[in-house]
Amino acid sequence: MLHIIYMEMNKSTILLGHGSGGKLSHELIASVFLKHFNNEPLMRSTDSALLHIDCNDIVFTTDGYVVDPVFFPGGNIGKLAVCGTVNDIAVTGAQPLYLSASFIIEEGFAFDRLEEIVVSMAAEAKKAGVLIVTGDTKVVNKGKCDKIFITTSGVGVLDKKFKHIAGAGECRPGDKIIVNGSLGNHGMAVMSSREQLHYHTPVESDCGSLYSLIRAVTEEVPVSFMRDATRGGLATVLVELCGMTKLGISLDEEHIPIDDSVRGICEVFGFDPLYVANEGKVVMVVPAAYSTKAVQIMQSMAEGKDAAVIGEITGTEKPRVILNTVVGGKRIMDMLAGEQLPRIC
Amino acid sequence: MLHIIYMEMNKSTILLGHGSGGKLSHELIASVFLKHFNNEPLMRSTDSALLHIDCNDIVFTTDGYVVDPVFFPGGNIGKLAVCGTVNDIAVTGAQPLYLSASFIIEEGFAFDRLEEIVVSMAAEAKKAGVLIVTGDTKVVNKGKCDKIFITTSGVGVLDKKFKHIAGAGECRPGDKIIVNGSLGNHGMAVMSSREQLHYHTPVESDCGSLYSLIRAVTEEVPVSFMRDATRGGLATVLVELCGMTKLGISLDEEHIPIDDSVRGICEVFGFDPLYVANEGKVVMVVPAAYSTKAVQIMQSMAEGKDAAVIGEITGTEKPRVILNTVVGGKRIMDMLAGEQLPRIC
Repeated sequence: MLHIIYMEMNKSTILLGHGSGGKLSHELIASVFLKHFNNEPLMRSTDSALLHIDCNDIVFTTDGYVVDPVFFPGGNIGKLAVCGTVNDIAVTGAQPLYLSASFIIEEGFAFDRLEEIVVSMAAEAKKAGVLIVTGDTKVVNKGKCDKIFITTSGVGVLDKKFKHIAGAGECRPGDKIIVNGSLGNHGMAVMSSREQLHYHTPVESDCGSLYSLIRAVTEEVPVSFMRDATRGGLATVLVELCGMTKLGISLDEEHIPIDDSVRGICEVFGFDPLYVANEGKVVMVVPAAYSTKAVQIMQSMAEGKDAAVIGEITGTEKPRVILNTVVGGKRIMDMLAGEQLPRIC
Repeated sequence: MLHIIYMEMNKSTILLGHGSGGKLSHELIASVFLKHFNNEPLMRSTDSALLHIDCNDIVFTTDGYVVDPVFFPGGNIGKLAVCGTVNDIAVTGAQPLYLSASFIIEEGFAFDRLEEIVVSMAAEAKKAGVLIVTGDTKVVNKGKCDKIFITTSGVGVLDKKFKHIAGAGECRPGDKIIVNGSLGNHGMAVMSSREQLHYHTPVESDCGSLYSLIRAVTEEVPVSFMRDATRGGLATVLVELCGMTKLGISLDEEHIPIDDSVRGICEVFGFDPLYVANEGKVVMVVPAAYSTKAVQIMQSMAEGKDAAVIGEITGTEKPRVILNTVVGGKRIMDMLAGEQLPRIC
């Protein structure tokens, strides 16, 4: 009888033994990770993945995900962990190829929720054209972490012609600033879900891979710079860009796409949507002559249908981000000092 | 006055804002991570590191570290996170080159303890010849994780002539099994430290990078297989090797190096040292004709001074690990079912 209870527990929740490196770990790896991530380098089941990469310029990145709640409208921590790392690579101009996934799981976490997370990671990886080739699982005692944390790292290959993008060295006064859609959805979706707020029009996270959209644009447009606008939102990306280029930025509030529902929640709770996190938004800087083309390419794709030119790079005399407000004022955008919304990713 | 208190707190403990991606994050990155990890790809301060690698066979690995306590005799979570990932790469026969480090920190964690961890990561990376080129920091509310978790991922390059090592395809009956020193020290050091046990001869973790030792051996010895004996200990590595090769293994208990202090603690608490975690031990399989040479090379180095031949690969008829005990019996070694010691790494 006891044995049966143990076996059923074993199937329904994560035990400390699932992180031991022993039999239960092997069962978990086979029944969940190998099953869904299924690819040749992973299947060799060594601690390290052996990869053959036909390029010598490599992009390498990592991000830890601690989002609360683990499941939110439009995604979950697993989808987020894949998209986030894919996007970090894609915005350098590189093609994301391989991901690692390291799980820290609280003892007692439901097995089927873990599988749901892993299934969505596999689906998102497939969509972005990347393989999850190596991983790790640790289980900590109940109360020693909050349900599940996932750290993904990624490797991509960078074509020489895109090497300038990450450093923003080609940005020039007059270049246009483009964003591929409405801002603030991820942050407000997670916050609403965490606080169990219900609205007429529920806000969904924009969590999604940007690689296809970015590739489509970069094939036809000489992009000067791009960055995904995650923690800290659009404003933080642009403030950082100013710091890198020593060039000013002028933003037109009226052209910045923000959904009415997001704007409404932000107003009620006192958030500035320009600082709220996104997980499927890229900020691009392109020469003015190409801005219409870039926007058209984006608008032809689902993840870019609300793309818009929202401002431009100005001169060197005032290397600041100036927001031209709807009411005709000007506002200097600075970096956030503290934390606006913790555990948003 | 309030402002002063805030500033002092700000310096002495980690705040949620240090994980925001805003100003405090930037300060933390500059004052701790960039300061100590100081290297060119990291200094570019983009989310992803751009690397030029002159080899197309890449090894990619990841591991999450949740060790409790964070500081233990012989090391801390940071040293462990660097050594562990360096070793996972080194045992494939590859040269570790680049590491990422992703931190999940509990709000209120002492700033100087974090710096201490980062300093030891930098020192260990230097020793192993790797650069920590990219990273991430998340801060979660007090009580939502246990002090600090670190996930490191690593990239290395693999010379063609070592490609067989990870797969163990060259292991032949008669090959000798070698270990570079005494077993069980890491597990018993962490457990003793966690439970605040005090002994006459304190046990220190063997936590250390194995790359120099492995390179020294592989330059002169055609290694058939190697693996670091971490979670699950020596026994788990050998049981996995049996599964991969379908060959038996015969171990001689009398030749397996185990420190008296570790043996004593294991006896008192009922642990089998062959299953206890190590963090600086490699298990190597080499052709019999090279075993003396391999042991000599190891013994000439500090991290291999107690190296010994501990057994050999036997035939296909019984693909099991058999331990020939000191008292003349035989014991079949199997994989651990559950967790012997949680949060050992």
